[in-house]
Amino acid sequence: MTKKRISESTIHRLSLYLRALSVLEKESHETVSSKELAKREKLTPAQVRKDLSFFGSFGTRGLGYPVSDLKKQIASILGIDRLWKVALFGVGNIGSALVSYKEFSRQGFQIIKLFDNDQRKIGSNHKGIIISDIKDMEKELQEAQIEIAVIAVPATVAQYIVDDVVKAGIKAILNFAPINLKVPQDVYLRNENMSMELEYLSFALVNNHSQKRPKI
Amino acid sequence: MTKKRISESTIHRLSLYLRALSVLEKESHETVSSKELAKREKLTPAQVRKDLSFFGSFGTRGLGYPVSDLKKQIASILGIDRLWKVALFGVGNIGSALVSYKEFSRQGFQIIKLFDNDQRKIGSNHKGIIISDIKDMEKELQEAQIEIAVIAVPATVAQYIVDDVVKAGIKAILNFAPINLKVPQDVYLRNENMSMELEYLSFALVNNHSQKRPKI
Repeated sequence: MTKKRISESTIHRLSLYLRALSVLEKESHETVSSKELAKREKLTPAQVRKDLSFFGSFGTRGLGYPVSDLKKQIASILGIDRLWKVALFGVGNIGSALVSYKEFSRQGFQIIKLFDNDQRKIGSNHKGIIISDIKDMEKELQEAQIEIAVIAVPATVAQYIVDDVVKAGIKAILNFAPINLKVPQDVYLRNENMSMELEYLSFALVNNHSQKRPKI
Repeated sequence: MTKKRISESTIHRLSLYLRALSVLEKESHETVSSKELAKREKLTPAQVRKDLSFFGSFGTRGLGYPVSDLKKQIASILGIDRLWKVALFGVGNIGSALVSYKEFSRQGFQIIKLFDNDQRKIGSNHKGIIISDIKDMEKELQEAQIEIAVIAVPATVAQYIVDDVVKAGIKAILNFAPINLKVPQDVYLRNENMSMELEYLSFALVNNHSQKRPKI
């Protein structure tokens, strides 16, 4: 298995399979066919079989894939069969919403540190976490053994914050600020731009785009 | 130009080009090469040229693409050279954050209606918009000529709300609830799952995934 060749699209599809498998598990299904899994995620059965065979998982003809086992395997591949300690920077509108966003903790991402530069917020308790001064990040990130940083500060200051986060040794960053951040090659950076999905919708409405079997 | 064959990945890349072009415009660049555009979005120049030629845009050798023209052209393809009227369902943590999310209005998506079922919220003014009773959605969506619905209600009620939104004639839905919603074939549905990007990061950290030229 040559992990470096796995495309971003494949990783996203694994996340989708994981969600479908969680639902199937709740619905008490013990096995699932590639056809059913494909239907739930609007993919083709061939795509599902290809993705899963790539990760060494093969369905049994007539029976399909074992739901719980496959779920565990995908969680392991995605690295979410463990807990991750996450720090959030910027306790504004989006930041506050993210602290309450249950999907994060459900997938093992625990926001345990909050940072802000607003003196009125620093030291206050936000949903059980004391907001730290962004100036103390280096010490606090290391003490708390933070592995992932989520950036929810205004675009105007995001690059400065990220520079400090990188200096503090963080190797994985999820950015909500609408700006292209620069990070060294050994730091993983992902951008969450919520208006891109709306742009997909406007494109679809304007162009009457076919929804059948969308590629991901 | 056969628009139906445009993949989701291509549409997302168009959104990325648009952002890069906005930055280039602010930086007073009149032209941009495919190489520079590729570098800014971590793609290959060949990919950029392929995408743009598909939409009938060709750079001039030695000069590149005209920044403002290309930006306008992509905005037009994405359908964001106009304003879209958007209604938001669920004025909780995420909903409130989305009302303040400037990227939406910057790209032409105007949240002009808010709906909730909480009697304490209904009738109150939230950032200039009076929160409506979700029971009145059919009449209010039509009167306000809403074209896109954003769903930020809890997962447990999301399908019921979406069923009503579809009945009211809305054809494009952006869903933030962590659940797979069912909609008729003629309704465009996009899901925003913010933990998927974190899963990409955990995958990368665990597998030491190469970041060079990521596919999108």
